[in-house]
Amino acid sequence: MPKPTSQQIVVDLPPGRNYAIHFDRLVEAPGLLASAGVQSGQLLVVADDNVARHYLHALTASLETNGWAPRTHVVPPGEASKSTAVLGRLYDWALQAPIDRSTSVIALGGGVVGDLAGYLAATLLRGLPLFHIPTSLVAQVDSSIGGKTGINHSAGKNLIGAFHQPRFVLTDVSVLATLPDREYASGLAEVVKHALIADAGFFNWLETRWADVVQKDESVVAEMVFRAASIKAGIVAEDERESGRRRLLNFGHTFGHAIELATGYGTFTHGEAVAVGMRAALHLSSSLQSGKTVHERMLLPAFTRADALLSRIPISASLDGLSIEELIAAMATDKKRTEANLRFVVLNAVGKAKVVDVVPRGALEAAWKYAMGNVQPGSMTT
Amino acid sequence: MPKPTSQQIVVDLPPGRNYAIHFDRLVEAPGLLASAGVQSGQLLVVADDNVARHYLHALTASLETNGWAPRTHVVPPGEASKSTAVLGRLYDWALQAPIDRSTSVIALGGGVVGDLAGYLAATLLRGLPLFHIPTSLVAQVDSSIGGKTGINHSAGKNLIGAFHQPRFVLTDVSVLATLPDREYASGLAEVVKHALIADAGFFNWLETRWADVVQKDESVVAEMVFRAASIKAGIVAEDERESGRRRLLNFGHTFGHAIELATGYGTFTHGEAVAVGMRAALHLSSSLQSGKTVHERMLLPAFTRADALLSRIPISASLDGLSIEELIAAMATDKKRTEANLRFVVLNAVGKAKVVDVVPRGALEAAWKYAMGNVQPGSMTT
Repeated sequence: MPKPTSQQIVVDLPPGRNYAIHFDRLVEAPGLLASAGVQSGQLLVVADDNVARHYLHALTASLETNGWAPRTHVVPPGEASKSTAVLGRLYDWALQAPIDRSTSVIALGGGVVGDLAGYLAATLLRGLPLFHIPTSLVAQVDSSIGGKTGINHSAGKNLIGAFHQPRFVLTDVSVLATLPDREYASGLAEVVKHALIADAGFFNWLETRWADVVQKDESVVAEMVFRAASIKAGIVAEDERESGRRRLLNFGHTFGHAIELATGYGTFTHGEAVAVGMRAALHLSSSLQSGKTVHERMLLPAFTRADALLSRIPISASLDGLSIEELIAAMATDKKRTEANLRFVVLNAVGKAKVVDVVPRGALEAAWKYAMGNVQPGSMTT
Repeated sequence: MPKPTSQQIVVDLPPGRNYAIHFDRLVEAPGLLASAGVQSGQLLVVADDNVARHYLHALTASLETNGWAPRTHVVPPGEASKSTAVLGRLYDWALQAPIDRSTSVIALGGGVVGDLAGYLAATLLRGLPLFHIPTSLVAQVDSSIGGKTGINHSAGKNLIGAFHQPRFVLTDVSVLATLPDREYASGLAEVVKHALIADAGFFNWLETRWADVVQKDESVVAEMVFRAASIKAGIVAEDERESGRRRLLNFGHTFGHAIELATGYGTFTHGEAVAVGMRAALHLSSSLQSGKTVHERMLLPAFTRADALLSRIPISASLDGLSIEELIAAMATDKKRTEANLRFVVLNAVGKAKVVDVVPRGALEAAWKYAMGNVQPGSMTT
């Protein structure tokens, strides 16, 4: 069991599934693999096209210099790669040379590559060792931590998947320099989400440092990623299979998934949809705390600072032309619902979240109206 | 945690993954599901064509009478159904109506259906509750116990898969009445294997009762299945992920897989190939215990009774025309090898097995010659 350091977070799962998140440069991968006890020379490295252009050569060169034998496979960027067709090509590639149970899989990329290569690792020979090197902000603070892997089906996103914890995560914050602004903003939505559900101190810090966050000041970004990843790691360690506290990570997601579905996947980024969804969820939190539906232009004072910070995350898409009815209908296809009931995560206060099962229809409609009245496409502002 | 009874074996895995093997009629499934705490009315039942003809209606009628809502899907019988194509159709079927994480999967069938429907359950929504109702002897004593699920790839069998333990196994030995003789014989090979690696008393019992075993005397078959399943359950409980003792279950398999591969899958049943493979492994055990290669027509006296019992399992296929070189080459594609090394399970005595990594080439050739000299196609004899 690795010991935590200032450059490391430990995801404290039961023996055999616990692991470290190392904060280091990606060219340090060879030494970290050796320290992790990886013995086979054979490594399967999966990256997407965009990430490969910037970082794949640096990684494979450092591996080869240190005596490893990486084989690489590059997939097209974007959600469409989380398909049975791309997965089938990955199986063919992985199995075209002999592999054994000590062959390791390295996922170099954002959430799509992490989910896809993670699922490859979960299902080849009933589970190969997996290593994440997340290159997007959302992957560094969220999707690389906690073992969710999977692909999409025409009936919905992530319907086919497995829990498969990595052996370690190697997070190199310097790679965020090449991340497109819209993807960075999308990741900020998850960062703010982590603060809102679990850490009021981190929320205050984000409010204060927002200008440096937006300008990608390297030491501020490093601290932000470390703190946000720590929150995710702590929640996952408490509830590996999402039967309890891990559900809080879905704050904004019941609304957000509906936005993605109703507008067509890819119109909003996932983070944008969640950012708007969290504003709806703050309104719903206001109504539930008041005990009556709050006016569609109002919020309880307890949630206005949270809403103001979320309003600073730019949204490059619009909800124009959609009706409340369409959005409410879209919520009912979220795979996380139990039977006919929708579940919502709401806040009691900044840093304190809970799950509610029953929500009055009027409060839901007002929450949607509040969010729709506040979606203003715009660029990143400090 | 269920308590063991005379009608029940407990697979003693860590909390959350332990489960019971119930020995009962399949129409008792509704009560057992209720006792297991299954709440959703929605059940996905997968069966193969042959099994469906005999038993699917009885199962679904009992479920419906008791207020459950099973949806059923029938796949073609045989190993070819463990494919990405059939799996894709199962995903489409399962997702054509809303499901949630409490939707359960029931695998009604032999090893193929268990592996396929088990993998469906392992990967839908990152894991649905799974219930096995094994209908073949090999499924009842071996494949339904221990959580191995998966499908095949053109590069080899079971290369894509997951560990996913069932919530319970419901074993109805009366269904073996309709099992074809060749499949029953194939299951007997795994029964004898369990005795040889772990339970000399059970081996003695099998020797004594063999005539009743072959004639499918119901009480003898019930005791045989119970004892063989107990051995498998005990080994799995000690070593869920096959990093230690569970490897002993591969006795005869390094040779057996080579037979299946070299003769073309389906020529030998898996059990037939393993039966022949165990005879080769007994010869190898003789050579290793002697410290020198034993003559290709001889065995150490310690293993002659084991070999005699194996010789009573009929083999409906032949190794004619194959060379030792082809068979040795085929062994090297077993996915369980580590790097270039082949692993073999050998016996120290009946009931005591161990894994060896390094085997002299001469001993290997003699073992193959011994087995090849003894494969005589024949029917079941008492």
